[in-house]
Amino acid sequence: MQHYFIDQKLKLNEEIALPADIYQHAVTVLRMKIGDHFELVDSAHKTFVVEICKLEGKSATAKAIKKLETDNEMPLGISIACGVPKNDKKADLVIEKGTEMGAERFIFFPSQYAVGKWRPNKVERKLTRLQKKVRSAAEQSHRNMVPEVEYIQGIDDLIKLPADYKIVAYEESAKQGEASQLHQQLEMVKNDIKAGKHPSMLAVFGPEGGIAPEEIQKYKAAGFAVCGLGPRILRTESAPLYFLSAVSYATELS
Amino acid sequence: MQHYFIDQKLKLNEEIALPADIYQHAVTVLRMKIGDHFELVDSAHKTFVVEICKLEGKSATAKAIKKLETDNEMPLGISIACGVPKNDKKADLVIEKGTEMGAERFIFFPSQYAVGKWRPNKVERKLTRLQKKVRSAAEQSHRNMVPEVEYIQGIDDLIKLPADYKIVAYEESAKQGEASQLHQQLEMVKNDIKAGKHPSMLAVFGPEGGIAPEEIQKYKAAGFAVCGLGPRILRTESAPLYFLSAVSYATELS
Repeated sequence: MQHYFIDQKLKLNEEIALPADIYQHAVTVLRMKIGDHFELVDSAHKTFVVEICKLEGKSATAKAIKKLETDNEMPLGISIACGVPKNDKKADLVIEKGTEMGAERFIFFPSQYAVGKWRPNKVERKLTRLQKKVRSAAEQSHRNMVPEVEYIQGIDDLIKLPADYKIVAYEESAKQGEASQLHQQLEMVKNDIKAGKHPSMLAVFGPEGGIAPEEIQKYKAAGFAVCGLGPRILRTESAPLYFLSAVSYATELS
Repeated sequence: MQHYFIDQKLKLNEEIALPADIYQHAVTVLRMKIGDHFELVDSAHKTFVVEICKLEGKSATAKAIKKLETDNEMPLGISIACGVPKNDKKADLVIEKGTEMGAERFIFFPSQYAVGKWRPNKVERKLTRLQKKVRSAAEQSHRNMVPEVEYIQGIDDLIKLPADYKIVAYEESAKQGEASQLHQQLEMVKNDIKAGKHPSMLAVFGPEGGIAPEEIQKYKAAGFAVCGLGPRILRTESAPLYFLSAVSYATELS
């Protein structure tokens, strides 16, 4: 069933006027008619089945006919922070697939070995573009929320962000055979979840050039766990997807 | 260090003439000179550091100066079988990222709900193109082998392929809350690995349209475990990547 997000709270049996973007997609593109159903996720992340009940000119009204109990969110809140990648296509892949795979927030930041750069006057436009793609991916993957996309000035601000768990994926660790840190972190996360908590996790990934040794020292000093992601070299856009899948497997399927 | 594959067995201190494709990339593109080093993986999946020792006209000779003990392969052999996806871009993503993430073989096959189709006269060309991309991804991710890409005529041939473990990822299972099959399978795989075995696994993924109920019955009858991959709906090209990451996490990092 088609799935959209709306920036207000819904109640069962309530009738609401559809915002222009949903009208445009549901009625103009998909040619939905009176009586047709779709899912609407409200600002409290609750999903309702709604039925189109009025169509007048360029506006439509839908009624919330059923509240769904489905919650497709991860049992923890994951922020994925990526050193600015070489090109937009890589950022697109991370946020699109990362949204499907359950991330709650994406942060891009400039880092020492990065080849790519986001010029200050382009940051806003890039974020708007990515946020739109995230919304569309969240609709397609039937998320209960639309992840946020942010830009942070640099590693000094990044390491100050609050999170219950902080990890940094480091290729050099993997090369030296480090293969237990991620598992140790996720076992602690699982214990938290069992205890009824909803922990937060900040996971940092380097750009194509990797992470500078001085940067790793900063992460370590700020309490980040330095994790390898297996013996194969993952590209900068693949590592966050590996990580999200591993977290989902560990916390949702194990 | 640059990483190439060669279709012959190497011995320490052996001198070999570089094949044209490696010459082209190492000498013409990367401008390597006498004394420069790179990695060469031989037909027995062994990695050697080689040094360029002669450059004459359009040919080069390299000497195997060190044998590396690195083995970046998964402790099991995974075949990823995908219903033919809607477009080549999706197939590219599966084989490129799937190679980074450790798959040993990719199989494409026509399935009932598939929107895409590989015309018989185009299969060979598509496979050649994909195989080239796989090789390049295997070089970049420092694999010890180049995965194979194949096309199979249909599900009846697919289910007959031999494998120690066979699974099919099914969205409808995930929707019904199935969340333990993959874990059960991977626990058995882990026991095999602990016992010194190198098990094989065939994992099947549907195309965009999903898998028909009749097809699921066939898979079940052929002994496939029907697995959910978590509560979020993954696109056809994302599911194999989720799966490979989960298997790597379970068998290499846990």
